[in-house]
Amino acid sequence: MMKLTIVKVGGAVLEDPESFAEFLHRFHSIEGYKMLVHGGGRTATQIAGQLGIETKMADGRRITDRAMLEVVTMVYGGLINKNSVAFLQSIGCNALGITGADLDIIRAKKRLVTDIDFGWVGDITRVNGETLQKILLQDIVPVIAPLTHDGAGNLLNTNADTIASAIASALSACFMVTLIYCFEKDGVLSDPNDNNSVIPLLNIALYEKYRSENIIHSGMIPKLDNCFRALESGVNEVWITNQKMDSHNQGTKLKL
Amino acid sequence: MMKLTIVKVGGAVLEDPESFAEFLHRFHSIEGYKMLVHGGGRTATQIAGQLGIETKMADGRRITDRAMLEVVTMVYGGLINKNSVAFLQSIGCNALGITGADLDIIRAKKRLVTDIDFGWVGDITRVNGETLQKILLQDIVPVIAPLTHDGAGNLLNTNADTIASAIASALSACFMVTLIYCFEKDGVLSDPNDNNSVIPLLNIALYEKYRSENIIHSGMIPKLDNCFRALESGVNEVWITNQKMDSHNQGTKLKL
Repeated sequence: MMKLTIVKVGGAVLEDPESFAEFLHRFHSIEGYKMLVHGGGRTATQIAGQLGIETKMADGRRITDRAMLEVVTMVYGGLINKNSVAFLQSIGCNALGITGADLDIIRAKKRLVTDIDFGWVGDITRVNGETLQKILLQDIVPVIAPLTHDGAGNLLNTNADTIASAIASALSACFMVTLIYCFEKDGVLSDPNDNNSVIPLLNIALYEKYRSENIIHSGMIPKLDNCFRALESGVNEVWITNQKMDSHNQGTKLKL
Repeated sequence: MMKLTIVKVGGAVLEDPESFAEFLHRFHSIEGYKMLVHGGGRTATQIAGQLGIETKMADGRRITDRAMLEVVTMVYGGLINKNSVAFLQSIGCNALGITGADLDIIRAKKRLVTDIDFGWVGDITRVNGETLQKILLQDIVPVIAPLTHDGAGNLLNTNADTIASAIASALSACFMVTLIYCFEKDGVLSDPNDNNSVIPLLNIALYEKYRSENIIHSGMIPKLDNCFRALESGVNEVWITNQKMDSHNQGTKLKL
């Protein structure tokens, strides 16, 4: 089976041109088929602020009214995506920047209003694995912005971690997939204030234990849920690590 | 030879969702291979204004400093491009939204500073016709934002009319290309205040005459230069018409 590495990057690394360039160089050096999924929430918040649009969050997720949808479409689909592509092209990586709407790659449905109205936020209903596979086999490196569409003409803001997990799952039928989540810390920490407290291996039992002890909480929970969902649907390896992606020396390896 | 229609759209039609939807329906109904190139200068000016960034023009072209480059990357590469793609997908058109950086489609070099420093504006040096052809033959409809790249990691703001003309020229080697420029008026007018004064057929001799008489001037000149350049390099048909694209009843047909 062919090897595919899917890297999700977000957070502070996107904001600092120098560390982002370093990260993209490392991404480029990954052998075999690969794909990048990026976030960009901090930049979206900053641009929204400059436009006088207030950022509202609920459960760590962005409430996306019409004005905020325009901002994330500009920031994710334009600013971050196209600058990443231009940089990757400059170092010889044949990048193609897309959203879930392009080539109908990712369909989603607008999240139902319950206690909270998230607005134009999408929950994924289908990943077009066949088209993604076709792109990869042409030695193209997809760079995916965290936007999906509903098939009725609307773009939807969709969590980048979830997109990476859903794509990894869909492609695990035809690739041996390694999914790497890059973030600020070196891995999942047992003490959030101590970057030396990385948990090297995390299985579901241990996850449940840390969760019940409140060692793992808030933003890490949806992230880890995405990781385990990917493993359950056939993804070969899942790592949470820093932007150096030196996962075999650092980082948390997830196991069922 | 296979038929390819390249449509360039810009101006007011992009700003009004209803007329833009109508336009995209008409675009979708074009038979054979097709491609859309869009502008978006008015929206860029508006968003720039909201961000407190002043729009400066010289010879009808946007001066693109670092801040303005970010705006056009957001507006052209994100907002307009991705909303067009989502709409086209909703009506069954398999659109792929790209810039010149994606798949290294269009290289350009930063314009040299003479009397005017245009900033991050690019003059096209190479169109990757082979890759565009490959995309088209997969029944994908490219939607192209007016951004190119320099191969050194920089995006460059590039006139959409020029992009449409350069792509049409590059693809005329393997397609019978019709190039349609859509804008507010019904065609090239002999009296700018009278929409009934469309010049039905314009050849170079007539163009030179109207130009010397100042009947054709300012913004129409670079547009028409792009048209004639396309014809000279083998493009089959070039039209300037309104967004209804009913070019056989309305509009100006260009001839060498």
